Amino acid sequence: ARTGTAEAVYAAGKTPEQVVGALAALREAHPGRVAVATRCDDACSAAVREAFGADVLVESGVCAVGDFPDAETGLLAVVCAGTSDLPVAREAQIVARANGIDTRLVADVGVAGLHRLLDKVGELREAACVIVVAGMDGALPSVVAGLVAAPVVAVPTSVGYGAAFGGLAPLLTMLNSCSPGVTVVNIDNGFGAAMAAARMLGMKAAS
Amino acid sequence: ARTGTAEAVYAAGKTPEQVVGALAALREAHPGRVAVATRCDDACSAAVREAFGADVLVESGVCAVGDFPDAETGLLAVVCAGTSDLPVAREAQIVARANGIDTRLVADVGVAGLHRLLDKVGELREAACVIVVAGMDGALPSVVAGLVAAPVVAVPTSVGYGAAFGGLAPLLTMLNSCSPGVTVVNIDNGFGAAMAAARMLGMKAAS
Amino acid sequence: ARTGTAEAVYAAGKTPEQVVGALAALREAHPGRVAVATRCDDACSAAVREAFGADVLVESGVCAVGDFPDAETGLLAVVCAGTSDLPVAREAQIVARANGIDTRLVADVGVAGLHRLLDKVGELREAACVIVVAGMDGALPSVVAGLVAAPVVAVPTSVGYGAAFGGLAPLLTMLNSCSPGVTVVNIDNGFGAAMAAARMLGMKAAS
Amino acid sequence: ARTGTAEAVYAAGKTPEQVVGALAALREAHPGRVAVATRCDDACSAAVREAFGADVLVESGVCAVGDFPDAETGLLAVVCAGTSDLPVAREAQIVARANGIDTRLVADVGVAGLHRLLDKVGELREAACVIVVAGMDGALPSVVAGLVAAPVVAVPTSVGYGAAFGGLAPLLTMLNSCSPGVTVVNIDNGFGAAMAAARMLGMKAAS
Amino acid sequence: ARTGTAEAVYAAGKTPEQVVGALAALREAHPGRVAVATRCDDACSAAVREAFGADVLVESGVCAVGDFPDAETGLLAVVCAGTSDLPVAREAQIVARANGIDTRLVADVGVAGLHRLLDKVGELREAACVIVVAGMDGALPSVVAGLVAAPVVAVPTSVGYGAAFGGLAPLLTMLNSCSPGVTVVNIDNGFGAAMAAARMLGMKAAS
Amino acid sequence: ARTGTAEAVYAAGKTPEQVVGALAALREAHPGRVAVATRCDDACSAAVREAFGADVLVESGVCAVGDFPDAETGLLAVVCAGTSDLPVAREAQIVARANGIDTRLVADVGVAGLHRLLDKVGELREAACVIVVAGMDGALPSVVAGLVAAPVVAVPTSVGYGAAFGGLAPLLTMLNSCSPGVTVVNIDNGFGAAMAAARMLGMKAAS
Amino acid sequence: ARTGTAEAVYAAGKTPEQVVGALAALREAHPGRVAVATRCDDACSAAVREAFGADVLVESGVCAVGDFPDAETGLLAVVCAGTSDLPVAREAQIVARANGIDTRLVADVGVAGLHRLLDKVGELREAACVIVVAGMDGALPSVVAGLVAAPVVAVPTSVGYGAAFGGLAPLLTMLNSCSPGVTVVNIDNGFGAAMAAARMLGMKAAS
Amino acid sequence: ARTGTAEAVYAAGKTPEQVVGALAALREAHPGRVAVATRCDDACSAAVREAFGADVLVESGVCAVGDFPDAETGLLAVVCAGTSDLPVAREAQIVARANGIDTRLVADVGVAGLHRLLDKVGELREAACVIVVAGMDGALPSVVAGLVAAPVVAVPTSVGYGAAFGGLAPLLTMLNSCSPGVTVVNIDNGFGAAMAAARMLGMKAAS
Ligand SMILES: Nc1ncnc2c1ncn2[C@@H]1O[C@H](COP(=O)(O)O)[C@@H](O)[C@H]1O
Ligand SMILES: Nc1ncnc2c1ncn2[C@@H]1O[C@H](COP(=O)(O)O)[C@@H](O)[C@H]1O
Ligand SMILES: Nc1ncnc2c1ncn2[C@@H]1O[C@H](COP(=O)(O)O)[C@@H](O)[C@H]1O
Ligand SMILES: Nc1ncnc2c1ncn2[C@@H]1O[C@H](COP(=O)(O)O)[C@@H](O)[C@H]1O
Ligand SMILES: [Mg+2]
Ligand SMILES: [Mg+2]
Ligand SMILES: [Mg+2]
Ligand SMILES: [Mg+2]
Ligand SMILES: [Mg+2]
Ligand SMILES: [Mg+2]
Ligand SMILES: [Mg+2]
Ligand SMILES: [Mg+2]
Repeated sequence: ARTGTAEAVYAAGKTPEQVVGALAALREAHPGRVAVATRCDDACSAAVREAFGADVLVESGVCAVGDFPDAETGLLAVVCAGTSDLPVAREAQIVARANGIDTRLVADVGVAGLHRLLDKVGELREAACVIVVAGMDGALPSVVAGLVAAPVVAVPTSVGYGAAFGGLAPLLTMLNSCSPGVTVVNIDNGFGAAMAAARMLGMKAAS
Repeated sequence: ARTGTAEAVYAAGKTPEQVVGALAALREAHPGRVAVATRCDDACSAAVREAFGADVLVESGVCAVGDFPDAETGLLAVVCAGTSDLPVAREAQIVARANGIDTRLVADVGVAGLHRLLDKVGELREAACVIVVAGMDGALPSVVAGLVAAPVVAVPTSVGYGAAFGGLAPLLTMLNSCSPGVTVVNIDNGFGAAMAAARMLGMKAAS
Repeated sequence: ARTGTAEAVYAAGKTPEQVVGALAALREAHPGRVAVATRCDDACSAAVREAFGADVLVESGVCAVGDFPDAETGLLAVVCAGTSDLPVAREAQIVARANGIDTRLVADVGVAGLHRLLDKVGELREAACVIVVAGMDGALPSVVAGLVAAPVVAVPTSVGYGAAFGGLAPLLTMLNSCSPGVTVVNIDNGFGAAMAAARMLGMKAAS
Repeated sequence: ARTGTAEAVYAAGKTPEQVVGALAALREAHPGRVAVATRCDDACSAAVREAFGADVLVESGVCAVGDFPDAETGLLAVVCAGTSDLPVAREAQIVARANGIDTRLVADVGVAGLHRLLDKVGELREAACVIVVAGMDGALPSVVAGLVAAPVVAVPTSVGYGAAFGGLAPLLTMLNSCSPGVTVVNIDNGFGAAMAAARMLGMKAAS
Repeated sequence: ARTGTAEAVYAAGKTPEQVVGALAALREAHPGRVAVATRCDDACSAAVREAFGADVLVESGVCAVGDFPDAETGLLAVVCAGTSDLPVAREAQIVARANGIDTRLVADVGVAGLHRLLDKVGELREAACVIVVAGMDGALPSVVAGLVAAPVVAVPTSVGYGAAFGGLAPLLTMLNSCSPGVTVVNIDNGFGAAMAAARMLGMKAAS
Repeated sequence: ARTGTAEAVYAAGKTPEQVVGALAALREAHPGRVAVATRCDDACSAAVREAFGADVLVESGVCAVGDFPDAETGLLAVVCAGTSDLPVAREAQIVARANGIDTRLVADVGVAGLHRLLDKVGELREAACVIVVAGMDGALPSVVAGLVAAPVVAVPTSVGYGAAFGGLAPLLTMLNSCSPGVTVVNIDNGFGAAMAAARMLGMKAAS
Repeated sequence: ARTGTAEAVYAAGKTPEQVVGALAALREAHPGRVAVATRCDDACSAAVREAFGADVLVESGVCAVGDFPDAETGLLAVVCAGTSDLPVAREAQIVARANGIDTRLVADVGVAGLHRLLDKVGELREAACVIVVAGMDGALPSVVAGLVAAPVVAVPTSVGYGAAFGGLAPLLTMLNSCSPGVTVVNIDNGFGAAMAAARMLGMKAAS
Repeated sequence: ARTGTAEAVYAAGKTPEQVVGALAALREAHPGRVAVATRCDDACSAAVREAFGADVLVESGVCAVGDFPDAETGLLAVVCAGTSDLPVAREAQIVARANGIDTRLVADVGVAGLHRLLDKVGELREAACVIVVAGMDGALPSVVAGLVAAPVVAVPTSVGYGAAFGGLAPLLTMLNSCSPGVTVVNIDNGFGAAMAAARMLGMKAAS
């Protein structure tokens, strides 16, 4: 069954009232699932907190309403280089956890300081699926995919300036990755990476 | 173990001799695996056939040398709309089969004639992973991902003209898919889609 | 005669006074027609309301001054997936109605949930012309045009982020539509879609 | 009924045998309709002629097999500036005629010599629908749409060089047309313009 | 001699103090010339007015300090379609007048309403040089250059939205103009158009 | 009168017969003028030579039929850096001469070797109008416009590779020139530069 | 040893507290080095000043904490045209000085007024490495590299408007430079230019 | 003195005769230096060989005429991932050697197989300057620059397909490198990388 799969509201361009309403509808339809809204601004998050109280996890633009299910899947590693890409990585991690996925964040690795990444290889190889979040040159997924055998979902971010062109640069890098096993989602789309990972890990759970 | 995983040569920009040499080296290093070259032109394919004889499968720019392993994974569906996208879909399918994956090609479906796609929904839902190949508007993966629960790997193709801009149009469509579960690879990259699917399906096999 | 055709002011980059003045001039020149301004911000809308009073319809950036004519044409369906694209769909619908066109809004359909769209096919086939508004992947017009025989005017929207590139992604999708009968207008140009539909439906009225 | 509507084969990237086969299938399925293939090269056209004999109209990359139906619709004007854009204009005209549409080609008008266009205004106003084909600056549809009340379908062409960027320049021009009533199809897509016009003119015929 | 040629300050990204200082330096170096600053915001304009008093002409982002020279050149026509493009047209006109050029603004003409343009042809033909300012489709320079024998300097503007891409659309239109005699400057660069026109008209004055 | 102004045929995409026919028509209509075709390939040039005999000047893709008029204008300097940009510079020069303009080619100057350019400053200052042709970085017009008082028509060329993007790089450079007096034409458009210069120089001749 | 090399924090998208924390950590780890943060806004700079007191150099978005080392390298010249590009040039200069590099700023030179640049040639030739910062047409590095024998690091800036496309125009200009010895960094990346120059000059110091 | 510095001819778009002539002129002007032509096709290379005989090194589009000078500089490492990028790496290496630079090619390293790169770190750290050539994702320079202290000149190549966009993808990757010390040259510009490295290494030689 699909029990436990979180539904999501895309809050950008919606009023706080609309987001609260959509979350309430999701909660009513599926009381056992976490209802999630992504890309919430401060006003929206405040309204959600006000409406749903202590139950709400608010972070990195995500509001998650409801008790998180126990994790019953293989491990999902969410990897990024540092603080700038963290909000996108956290969006992915929270959405994944809301879907009952076991996650681990590995956030201190970047291609400019390879040894820190190499120190984590053992940890990365424990994961059944890896999400790699990277801005600027977007080189991290290529390197990670060369070190693990799991599928790698690459998330380019809009972190950077100039010729990063709002995330176009790491997007192209990732689409051209020389390492097999890399697939790509939209710029800053931690949500989409988590949903794809959930489907991949669900294959296993279902078997 | 990683037994059965095919190695691949990227033949574009290599001489026939270089491709034959690279395939021979792969065969020697891993006698039990299929050695694959992608993006072979006619001269290259002829040289491979001449070098390796009846063993070689030659189609859609792929040369595959060696006995295909028995399929031991969940089903991979490879979906496209029609004859134009077939070479890319076939590249994906052959590479997948060379990696021991059970595949099925669904090639008569396009969003302009929805009923043909709807007729295949049952078949698509049997798959543990779906590759969707589409050019021009690239709308097919969004529709398919709304109909199945498996992960969808979307492959944009360079089929089309004018504002298709060599595959940019379907690439952007797929990156912006409204349906959760879609990840994307490079334009015309059937090979990469198959390798990513192999990792996804291998998660199950490994468990 | 062209009686009943609304004139329109493009309010972006005009002062509220300039917009009010332009609307007043239109009303004076054509007392029997609705005078419309598009892309009004709040200050502009307030000024128009203040100047013209209860007569004014203000919504989705449109200010429409004057009594709406009775609809005397074939039906125009305005279709979109959800709340994000609604303002553009509403711009199209209001401008169409101001031109004496019979319209129906179909706003709960998206390609990720095909069954909701299929439930509306009967309704869509009643229309003599269909405007389809879509952002992100912009896949909806291709699917709709495969289901109806009427001309489809596709309006890409700037809804989305990252590789949506401000509406470029759905614009390209629509220009490359595999379904015959689709023509395209500028990103977010509900006004232009309505004016083109008015010409199409006017062909019938004129005959 | 939809009797008289031609089906079309997109010949680019197909072998002559595949195109002949597809046309034969169309003829068998709908003996009363014209079967059309677009974007045929010389080898393909020769094969079609060989297969279907004297019945075939071959021009501007189009092969049309079958007796053209009598025109029963309002007039479609197909307008372009000169010899360079003629193949695209002719593709549109032949496809339209194969669909039973009454067409007239107006090919000696360009915005650089406005008087020639103004001489044709009377003729253009007789049309119930106008297709305007233009490359380079793509300015012609804006001017024509200001002179007629019918819907204008604009077709950018890849004629030009340098900053024409393969038709991108006239495509953008047309999408930004200041004249209401203009909708746009893909670069060089005479076929799509004709199919959209057929739907527009069919609205009238059907009523 | 170069007497009468105005010097100009590019105010964008400068503090009001820097702009006032630069204008003062120009005035001191060339007391007989008008000192001009372009792209001034309100704070900058206020500071200039405060510093130089009643002498200053402030409009459309231009501050002009000093007595305007008598016009001694052939006529420069500055042409645009309407109110949206007026600030750029006025920038061109003021800078030209500050350089001693005789100018006339023709601002009620647009390609969507050709008759208003045709009514002005006599006036336009009196000009020795024509600047044409246009946004959105940017079609106006092509049409004007077909009606006059003088050189046409085309100025694309950032007026528009969506596929106007900040002025890219009219820029490409103008670079691809089918009418001989058109040259192009940067988007919104009324200043540059005026300086180029000054050189063209100066050729005559110098002879 | 406009006697002496050459007419031009754009030969790209025309058959040799069509070009010969168009030139013959021009010659008949205006026996006293040079008839010019640009962008002729070898087959086209051969056909023109065959048709018009010894009269024809064939070079850099230009065929010019008829006796060149005496030059009666101010001097036009055509400047480029070296052999790669020469064909475009020669297209400009021949078209200008065919229009009765006095021209001088200055072809040994490039910004990487500034002294050679500085050696020519005297010569450049004799010109009433300057065309500057440059590919790759396109820096030459900015430098030249800082050295002369005449109007500078900048022609970007498609010479270069990689990030030259077919002439886009020098096109953008020229549009952003910091030196006043620069206007720009399409990539490789020597013809257009010459026609614009003819209008500029004609202002003087006409006075 | 690498003593004296400054570490840098990228402040964009970090809170003031995060930046202060990162600088404190750098200071603690390397008490002898200058700790630098780039791209600080006012709030961030104020927090850094508050935390570290009189030691802090704050300018052009850079905060540098610690005593600057004595310069022990060859001379680095930092060149730009004027006030608009100064912040980027200053970022480069401060970061270089924080790394113990001897620097000289040459800020009054631009290609439109070549003589000012030529006056500085002697000074420029004293440098062992040259950073050239330029926006708009980005022509300055090409000219400078033709005048000196040292390596030239070119920094495009986002100064400009319209077809400058946020620095894309000078970036392309610089990548296509006809003068040997030019390498390029990201738009506005004074930091990166300084770090590259430090490596180049360190080669000498190390020998 | 500048003795030993090779001069270079850009052969693309020149006739074999022009290239031979240019090389002969270089040899006559500087008998002690190697004369180099880059981007020679087969016909051009054959003509050079025929003209200059056994002296000529012909490879990867480079023709080098004259005795190579002894290497007197620090070591230049030229790094790439494999056979596809080799021609560009070899262009860089040959041009460098022709300029008297000591070079070493490291060609078996790619980010997908990190261990091979790590095996070479010792070797790479011996270099005073490193050129890194990479196509597709262009990730290699970021990784290398994190492992060495020398300046890294990154050369994107046009190797790849689809979203590599002719080298745009690795170009953007390299411009956005997170590792300090990376500067970038044009796509496929091995020549330019070598000339820049020569200037960097010459700083040391000159000291
Ligand atoms: N951050 C996100 N990026 C992309 N899609 C999202 C995001 N958050 C939610 N969605 C999708 O948007 C759909 C909801 O859209 P809406 O009905 O407009 O709230 C959900 O079903 C998700 O598939
Ligand atoms: N939202 C819109 N998008 C594009 N064109 C518009 C829009 N609203 C009005 N227009 C057109 O702009 C013209 C008015 O422009 P203006 O004179 O500047 O108000 C009208 O005649 C319409 O054709
Ligand atoms: N190289 C060229 N680039 C742009 N326009 C050209 C060129 N050569 C000729 N033309 C223009 O194209 C027109 C002729 O087009 P056509 O009638 O197709 O031969 C002439 O009147 C010129 O204005
Ligand atoms: N202005 C800048 N542009 C690019 N990279 C920078 C800049 N400033 C600092 N960095 C780099 O970013 C790294 C620090 O990133 P972070 O850990 O996010 O502060 C430093 O090691 C620098 O290499
Ligand atoms: Mg990264
Ligand atoms: Mg499709
Ligand atoms: Mg949609
Ligand atoms: Mg045209
Ligand atoms: Mg206009
Ligand atoms: Mg140049
Ligand atoms: Mg500059
Ligand atoms: Mg690589």
